Amino acid sequence: MASPVITLTTDFGAGEYAASMKGAVLTVSPNAALVDISHDVPPQDVAHGAFVLGACYRSFPKGAIHVAVVDPGVGGSRRPLLLVTPDAVLVGPDNGIFTYVLRDHAGADAFGVEGLCLFEPIQIPVPPGCRAFELDRSEYWRRPVSPTFHGRDIFAPAAAHLSLGVAPRAMAGEVDELTALNVPAPAITEDGAHGRVVHVDRFGNLVTNIPAEGLPHGKAVVEAAGARIDRVSGIYADGDGLMALIGSHGYLEIAESNGSAAVRLGVVAGAPVTCRGGVLRGEAP
Amino acid sequence: MASPVITLTTDFGAGEYAASMKGAVLTVSPNAALVDISHDVPPQDVAHGAFVLGACYRSFPKGAIHVAVVDPGVGGSRRPLLLVTPDAVLVGPDNGIFTYVLRDHAGADAFGVEGLCLFEPIQIPVPPGCRAFELDRSEYWRRPVSPTFHGRDIFAPAAAHLSLGVAPRAMAGEVDELTALNVPAPAITEDGAHGRVVHVDRFGNLVTNIPAEGLPHGKAVVEAAGARIDRVSGIYADGDGLMALIGSHGYLEIAESNGSAAVRLGVVAGAPVTCRGGVLRGEAP
Amino acid sequence: MASPVITLTTDFGAGEYAASMKGAVLTVSPNAALVDISHDVPPQDVAHGAFVLGACYRSFPKGAIHVAVVDPGVGGSRRPLLLVTPDAVLVGPDNGIFTYVLRDHAGADAFGVEGLCLFEPIQIPVPPGCRAFELDRSEYWRRPVSPTFHGRDIFAPAAAHLSLGVAPRAMAGEVDELTALNVPAPAITEDGAHGRVVHVDRFGNLVTNIPAEGLPHGKAVVEAAGARIDRVSGIYADGDGLMALIGSHGYLEIAESNGSAAVRLGVVAGAPVTCRGGVLRGEAP
Repeated sequence: MASPVITLTTDFGAGEYAASMKGAVLTVSPNAALVDISHDVPPQDVAHGAFVLGACYRSFPKGAIHVAVVDPGVGGSRRPLLLVTPDAVLVGPDNGIFTYVLRDHAGADAFGVEGLCLFEPIQIPVPPGCRAFELDRSEYWRRPVSPTFHGRDIFAPAAAHLSLGVAPRAMAGEVDELTALNVPAPAITEDGAHGRVVHVDRFGNLVTNIPAEGLPHGKAVVEAAGARIDRVSGIYADGDGLMALIGSHGYLEIAESNGSAAVRLGVVAGAPVTCRGGVLRGEAP
Repeated sequence: MASPVITLTTDFGAGEYAASMKGAVLTVSPNAALVDISHDVPPQDVAHGAFVLGACYRSFPKGAIHVAVVDPGVGGSRRPLLLVTPDAVLVGPDNGIFTYVLRDHAGADAFGVEGLCLFEPIQIPVPPGCRAFELDRSEYWRRPVSPTFHGRDIFAPAAAHLSLGVAPRAMAGEVDELTALNVPAPAITEDGAHGRVVHVDRFGNLVTNIPAEGLPHGKAVVEAAGARIDRVSGIYADGDGLMALIGSHGYLEIAESNGSAAVRLGVVAGAPVTCRGGVLRGEAP
Repeated sequence: MASPVITLTTDFGAGEYAASMKGAVLTVSPNAALVDISHDVPPQDVAHGAFVLGACYRSFPKGAIHVAVVDPGVGGSRRPLLLVTPDAVLVGPDNGIFTYVLRDHAGADAFGVEGLCLFEPIQIPVPPGCRAFELDRSEYWRRPVSPTFHGRDIFAPAAAHLSLGVAPRAMAGEVDELTALNVPAPAITEDGAHGRVVHVDRFGNLVTNIPAEGLPHGKAVVEAAGARIDRVSGIYADGDGLMALIGSHGYLEIAESNGSAAVRLGVVAGAPVTCRGGVLRGEAP
């Protein structure tokens, strides 16, 4: 039988903190197959961590357990959370780290709250088909619990016990709402789709919240930070300089051929992006 | 049966050197469960590597094998070492890389040598309950041995053979002293505890050598680099700006809320830290 | 039975892209033992990635599967490749990423094309003892295939299927030539060996293409970037300041004791290095 997969996503860097979590998992579940998703999330950047996890968790086998700890509020009032979706089991603080996982089940519309800043925390109901639990049974924690390191003392042991077959209900009480970050769908007007950069990746590519569906090749004009791109390319090698394309995340992306669009445009997450022309989501084809 | 755990701590960066060690382990011990602790120890910084290893090795299952290679003296006269403690098996150069592991068994007092600089190498007897060996049986090495890469050619194969059940005595001759770095206990005076920053972590938190025991919340004043902090907080989220707290390492730590205390104070390892007031270690409660 | 080893070498950084590849492997081959070689290859630097892979793949068990994705031409006309050597199975784009693996089998002479720049792509015949295939059977791919992410959708699944015992021929059509980067052997004149820096490692050591065979200790003079080094040392600890030695890669290397030769000399890959005196390769001993 295959070893249970437990992935780790943190802002701990490669070092003693991430390693302590691995040790804590293996102490409880010696056959767990540990997979590093990333420990290089920028410190305290919950939105970045949420995107990284959301972008790759669906590539893992059904039932894989994902531990995500970007947790500036560790030891405070935020709840330690367990989220079970039809495809995955997720463990981490209730601070929005599962935003994109939740969006896969609640739909983008659940995340658009007018008048709120991008990434502002909001409370949403547990999406259909999912269940959420507060990890409140301390007999499944590592002792003593450091108030500054729940990754090692609560989240890693919880994931390890889950990998051994312990039921969520045995180690946690069910809850009916949880935290997400405000990531609204792009506004669709007659003038086009008005979205935002929601993630800057390792290459400096700017990933937007404008979904690919209905954005045909070559028929759109993309504008961001004063730059205008006259077509949507199919692949990175197509372009010369600044280019727009549909990234592997499934969203409109702005890239710089053999360079960094983020550096070229001086843009960070939150910057507005407009896509005009082409057939936009929601229009008749 | 669970795969034997072999961890790696190096200053090699993520690349061909660390990977060669992994390959060398798997060639000898194909079922070993390899775990990266860190490959991002700053080049040649033995004290940093020693801290990283010491901070997390106790989180791993009893009997886990830890390979640590920060080894500026590779190929010279420093001995290749095997250290067996009641909890762990450790392999690496005899240059102080196991300092904090040794301190867990010898006590902090064994590491205080007056008139020596912080982190200066000293010779200490093998602590009670531990045994140390020089890896001197070349039949357990990878051939040929590169004089500049014992990580791949001596340490990784030794760890792999140990994971297969080869006895330490079969591959190494016992020794009765070994190298540690000078990390004295803080000086306790009527005026308070006078310690030092011994580690700067990924977040810029300053970890000191002042142990947590006896330091109650809110009753101490901490001073470092001209800054004064009026209380010891329980968690990172408690503070606003510069703060002192008991870190997950079990030592007094100086942090900057949502920032880097190291950058804020311009401080590196070695900087003095004083903690006044409160009940200090060694006092009657 | 040991789990099949699948290694990963990419320029993706530690994050969602590398993690997606790991998930894609485990979805097909749940027992695969995943090993990170590096995800820190500089973006789009095929020559750097080729060196990293070439420097460590021989340390892995025979038959290990190596996936290497530094792939600026993803989705374009470059072929997805499978290379089978007597020792290893390799999967990645046909863009030169396997250059040093090929050199192990074709000999250095196959890589010297006069008048070409260092690292310029050339077509070479499949070396003796090796076989190469184009991954053209889409039933072994992940669906849908993103045109910008063959790592997740073609290469990782291919490696996973290979680890389950699928024959190369079942998933790929054989080809008789493939791409390598131009890395000529050093020119040997009466005056000495004239080579180049082909790699700068994590420590700033300058690895050249001048092979160690025949370079005895202490009998050569090495020149690079205006600096002159009067001997070839055996180990890093031997030197004080700038030094030459035979690195663990088996090639002449220039290092700076406890520092970075790359920074000291202001040198990057491609810089000329001359080694005079001593017995050079090809001379009678």
